[in-house]
Amino acid sequence: MSDLLERLRTGLPAEALITDPDVTASYAHDMASFCEAGTPAVVVLPRTVEQVQHVLRTATELRVPVVPQGARTGLSGAANASDGCIVLSLVKMDRILEISPVDRIAVVEPGVINAVLSRAVNEHGLYYPPDPSSWETCTIGGNIGTASGGLCCVKYGVTAEYVLGLDVVLADGRLLTTGRRTAKGVAGYDLTRLFVGSEGSLGIVVKAVLALKPQPPQQLVLAAEFPSAAAACDAVCRIMERGHTPSLLELMDRTTVRAVNELASMGLPETTEALLLCAFDTPDPAADLAAVGALCTEAGATEVVPADNPAESELLLQARRMSLTALETVKSATMIDDVCVPRSQLGAMLEGTAAIAERYDLTIGVCSHAGDGNTHPVVCFDHTDPDESRRARESFDAIMALGLELGGTITGEHGVGVLKKEWLARELGETGIELQRGIKAAFDPLGLLNPGKLF
Amino acid sequence: MSDLLERLRTGLPAEALITDPDVTASYAHDMASFCEAGTPAVVVLPRTVEQVQHVLRTATELRVPVVPQGARTGLSGAANASDGCIVLSLVKMDRILEISPVDRIAVVEPGVINAVLSRAVNEHGLYYPPDPSSWETCTIGGNIGTASGGLCCVKYGVTAEYVLGLDVVLADGRLLTTGRRTAKGVAGYDLTRLFVGSEGSLGIVVKAVLALKPQPPQQLVLAAEFPSAAAACDAVCRIMERGHTPSLLELMDRTTVRAVNELASMGLPETTEALLLCAFDTPDPAADLAAVGALCTEAGATEVVPADNPAESELLLQARRMSLTALETVKSATMIDDVCVPRSQLGAMLEGTAAIAERYDLTIGVCSHAGDGNTHPVVCFDHTDPDESRRARESFDAIMALGLELGGTITGEHGVGVLKKEWLARELGETGIELQRGIKAAFDPLGLLNPGKLF
Repeated sequence: MSDLLERLRTGLPAEALITDPDVTASYAHDMASFCEAGTPAVVVLPRTVEQVQHVLRTATELRVPVVPQGARTGLSGAANASDGCIVLSLVKMDRILEISPVDRIAVVEPGVINAVLSRAVNEHGLYYPPDPSSWETCTIGGNIGTASGGLCCVKYGVTAEYVLGLDVVLADGRLLTTGRRTAKGVAGYDLTRLFVGSEGSLGIVVKAVLALKPQPPQQLVLAAEFPSAAAACDAVCRIMERGHTPSLLELMDRTTVRAVNELASMGLPETTEALLLCAFDTPDPAADLAAVGALCTEAGATEVVPADNPAESELLLQARRMSLTALETVKSATMIDDVCVPRSQLGAMLEGTAAIAERYDLTIGVCSHAGDGNTHPVVCFDHTDPDESRRARESFDAIMALGLELGGTITGEHGVGVLKKEWLARELGETGIELQRGIKAAFDPLGLLNPGKLF
Repeated sequence: MSDLLERLRTGLPAEALITDPDVTASYAHDMASFCEAGTPAVVVLPRTVEQVQHVLRTATELRVPVVPQGARTGLSGAANASDGCIVLSLVKMDRILEISPVDRIAVVEPGVINAVLSRAVNEHGLYYPPDPSSWETCTIGGNIGTASGGLCCVKYGVTAEYVLGLDVVLADGRLLTTGRRTAKGVAGYDLTRLFVGSEGSLGIVVKAVLALKPQPPQQLVLAAEFPSAAAACDAVCRIMERGHTPSLLELMDRTTVRAVNELASMGLPETTEALLLCAFDTPDPAADLAAVGALCTEAGATEVVPADNPAESELLLQARRMSLTALETVKSATMIDDVCVPRSQLGAMLEGTAAIAERYDLTIGVCSHAGDGNTHPVVCFDHTDPDESRRARESFDAIMALGLELGGTITGEHGVGVLKKEWLARELGETGIELQRGIKAAFDPLGLLNPGKLF
């Protein structure tokens, strides 16, 4: 242990090393509940690529595991420490190195906060779409590690689609450059994409070339109340089937609506069974919202309220963005699921989730990126009650089983981490897992990078 | 050899096996010139997944290399036979299995022709964007293997962005399912993306889940003449910098324009140094073209002609689509390059290419997906003249060196195959190549799948 610290000190300034156990303990886990987390030996906060290389070389020499971290806003335990590990926090590498309006790219270090980048590119008339709920605090490096989604995905896709190239420090300290800064490129296997969503298990991202879009017009939001989740899902299918491309299409169930009102007095309609939010950032959003409003009415909406202006729209989005936080206040604890099903199966997913809630006698609030078929059922329970805790865990698993049955995936955007690693094998099958392990071995033969995650 | 045939026959109908050397010879290579190609032992044309598995199991048992093929329209020799190999042609697996307007996906076998799929999804109001020049004949499986681009990429991206999930037969005959049919998903490393562009070296794609877009309005095209390539590139930069999103943005140089006129009497303006084609498929394309036309004029265009109607637009696109074919008639032979540079470097790339043409005393016509910075310099030469042939080869390499120097890639969309494998190492570096080989070994430990390609 003191050997580890001594070696680390030879290539890192004193302020880049934290050894006080009270402080290092605060780096032990991300925002996922009920995931195992060990005690780190040390936390390092490098500011340069060379310092990261030094940390990895040291780790390899001494066979010490390394757990990379961004802002620790993840929801799967992927950033949780393992016992005796080096926690490698990238938050101090937070420079935006370049923004090019002609090439429509940004080059950034991994610790740049999502919202900081978003605002910086806005000033150049550009747009970095990925917008996880934690966008005000989460880092681009963390977004890349977990392949984050957000509200924008129904139109703009996920983080993976915006990562063109990477600089990565490998387990042995070598520096690898992948991908490109060009719009296209097919030179060899796509290593860039392999790192996206790999939860720090293949290498440490120290620089990223990100694709940008032109900034679209400000979006306008419509809210529609439905007498049942099924009717709201029917509306979602109609909207997508008719060829609309909303910039968001979100669903909040009654439990979520009430929780949000409770937390922030938002004045959302509590009589609704499902509230659908739909937005357009097109040249004529009012016309698109009118068309979508008509489809909602056809599907049985009892009320359709288009926002009159961007301020009203922003208020509706705020309500949606605080859904997870609000549901966390319903009981003493939550488990947040992240099942994604084919859009056509969304109704069956919500119906099945309601049946699971009833079967296990639990409150399960659902908010959903409905346009993507991505649901976040939030199991609310009293963690001091052992029986309720057991039922919560079982219902959480039942929700994933249902998702797979409906042709979906156990994780649409939160990742596997510690939380779902037993379920990954179930989704991928034996051959899939064997190949994934083969890739892991090719990149990290000693198994030092974020051990115990994913598999 | 007879052992191989006997074993293959046990799991394949007689008509699925071709052994006549005159016929098998016609399967020896794709459309790349000057790439080595061996003599196949046999050509197989399976119709089912089980038949493909049988072929791969047999190949593994007998240690016979397997070269997968689609329509052999590739331009890098990636589909070229090696001596004694099994050519595995997927063209008979040509069923569209599903089109879902709600989920916006199509599920297809690998032998489906790009244009057939495009037209089939159009009937559902949907759009499959990837449109390589060979789209009327090339197959989806080939498009996936080479990660094909096309004219649409500047707005809609490349094939990779439309592949959600795959069924793949591995080298040992096992069947692997990757990815998803959902809009999002982050369960484990992205194996789907790894197969896209892998040129059949990791496994045989037997089914693909493809993402679709809603069908956009028909595009309207504008043609602008420029007194120099530099001025045309300046216009490209202005168009992209101002936040426009054209559905295509193509450049043809004087040599290309003349060759197209020669071939098809298209009546293109031969006095131009560079012809820019720009299109929009937006709700109001005429307004967008007017704005772009003004930017072209600012950049020095001598003539700006927006098409009045879709028929005129289609004619201009036909001219662009026949560029490579037309340039092939300039001399007895061609070598087609595919360098992609950051858009901001396009002017330098064209200027440098002209300098290379002069230095080597050769005709090099350039057509370019200018909006992507992707150029196709076509070296035209007399292949019966040894000195001119040598100069052609050297200029071809000089073009790639220039592309790398400008921060670009040796291949934007045609792939590496045999043609550029020496250059791949130069682009990726030693560490990159080592990791690529590690992945190859994890998927194909015996090295039987398309040997001698990529590395």
